[in-house]
Amino acid sequence: MQPRILIVGTGAIGGFYGGKLTQAGASVSTLCRSDYELVKSKGITVTSTLGNFHFTPEKVIRDLGEYGPPPDYILVGLKVLPEIDTAKIIKEVVGAETAIVLLQNGVEIEEPVARAFPDNEIISGLAFICATRTSPGHIDHTDFGRLVIGRFPAGKSAKAEELATLFNDSGVVCEVSEDVVTARWRKLVWNAPFNPISVLGGGADTKTMVENPESLELARNVMEEVCLIAEAAGHPLPEEIVQQNIDGTRAMAPYKSSMLVDFEAARPMEVEAILGNGLRVAKRHGVSAPHMESLYGLLKLVDSKIRSQES
Amino acid sequence: MQPRILIVGTGAIGGFYGGKLTQAGASVSTLCRSDYELVKSKGITVTSTLGNFHFTPEKVIRDLGEYGPPPDYILVGLKVLPEIDTAKIIKEVVGAETAIVLLQNGVEIEEPVARAFPDNEIISGLAFICATRTSPGHIDHTDFGRLVIGRFPAGKSAKAEELATLFNDSGVVCEVSEDVVTARWRKLVWNAPFNPISVLGGGADTKTMVENPESLELARNVMEEVCLIAEAAGHPLPEEIVQQNIDGTRAMAPYKSSMLVDFEAARPMEVEAILGNGLRVAKRHGVSAPHMESLYGLLKLVDSKIRSQES
Repeated sequence: MQPRILIVGTGAIGGFYGGKLTQAGASVSTLCRSDYELVKSKGITVTSTLGNFHFTPEKVIRDLGEYGPPPDYILVGLKVLPEIDTAKIIKEVVGAETAIVLLQNGVEIEEPVARAFPDNEIISGLAFICATRTSPGHIDHTDFGRLVIGRFPAGKSAKAEELATLFNDSGVVCEVSEDVVTARWRKLVWNAPFNPISVLGGGADTKTMVENPESLELARNVMEEVCLIAEAAGHPLPEEIVQQNIDGTRAMAPYKSSMLVDFEAARPMEVEAILGNGLRVAKRHGVSAPHMESLYGLLKLVDSKIRSQES
Repeated sequence: MQPRILIVGTGAIGGFYGGKLTQAGASVSTLCRSDYELVKSKGITVTSTLGNFHFTPEKVIRDLGEYGPPPDYILVGLKVLPEIDTAKIIKEVVGAETAIVLLQNGVEIEEPVARAFPDNEIISGLAFICATRTSPGHIDHTDFGRLVIGRFPAGKSAKAEELATLFNDSGVVCEVSEDVVTARWRKLVWNAPFNPISVLGGGADTKTMVENPESLELARNVMEEVCLIAEAAGHPLPEEIVQQNIDGTRAMAPYKSSMLVDFEAARPMEVEAILGNGLRVAKRHGVSAPHMESLYGLLKLVDSKIRSQES
């Protein structure tokens, strides 16, 4: 029997990877809030460099009570924001055997969920993907798509292996890591500079950020700070990772970061997941990270403006 | 005979202080570019906390050839931008006895003018003022107004004393400093954080910047870096200056920095005068200034976007 998977947070990440899992034969349902009506009637259309596809979820639900027996996997693609309590949102549908998969940005984002469900397997995951929800029910996948997943906080996991096999069957390269926390820090090397700079630099895409010598220098400094913090926290990263991230970004099709997409839509940004959490780890370990601190101070100002305009 | 003064750069600074000098009996003319027609026909209207006033220049000229014999003072209120060559602009009207007064922001901004006119007295000046040119021929003065002027690079100056007397007669408090370069660093303690943060923080006024704890922390860090650089450059500032600037900003009526006004009008910003020059001094003296560096990297990105849209 194919595994039953519930997607919570059906944005670019949830919609894209949920659709791919369907292609591998899984029974994938989605919890939708704002996009419910449209996804319920028309499903999700994905324009993708891996080939366009349409994702018709098994069930589209607005309320977890409609789902049925607990799923084998809950795949969380929600944004990481202080006001979004993932544990509370998924509580009703978590069964004894349910693995909770957090496909989210940032560092130190697993703890609240792990504390709320101490007996459940938590699979932490990173999506190396350029994908944007362009409108309700529409996702534009422009580059990459690789996943790294692994049992949190570390170790082997049969469920992660099973999930990875599904992804690989669907054409998504998915690696299982026995040290997924290090993988999170590795991803932060990209996110910590380029997400904030794209917003603070006046709406810059990746090409603009690496071609401007001053913002490239800033990005490099932030990356080096992330490496220092990761090392102090017991997750050393290879020295060449900074240059690899810069070269990789140069090679990318010009891309708007997810934070910039949020900013332009006047939506709250993942400031804490991407900078605040890392800075708190820095503080715990006495690591100085003044460039990250600067971006954080500015983003908090921008984010509070967005939030004040929302209400 | 009252001194003849030519204002070059008739924005908020040139218009306001030129008008005050007229009130003290000086013969003040203005060189206008974009505002020429309006100022020629209607003069400049200043809404001011020191009392509203109207400034009718002796002559309003579009070309220095129209001015006549060299003035006693040229008061430069131009923005400090790489593409504005002050020396070249004023060359035609500088006489042997003309003192060149630079009422401009930033540090290390005098050298190009001093090099071009080695036999002329250069008076460097700082305006501690909240004033904005709201439209052609209209200036809104909302707070402060004090001047510090002094012979560049240092020392006593009869011409600076004479000019200060005129200002004081007009109701503008003007102090003559024998160490005006230190006064420039002192002013940079305010400008280096609050001008950039106001732009990068999504259009924040002074109140917003000091009330948000993260941006206040960033401002404080930048101020401390300015103090370290100034000290290394031989211009030590008193320790309490950081807290004084923060308290002073808290006490201010909410104010949009001049850099934010430029940004909102999509005009090039004084990035080099306010951050780049200071950072080059830091580099010369081996001082680390990562918070300033971060603001610089971001502002260069924003400024290059503005410039690319201009053309």
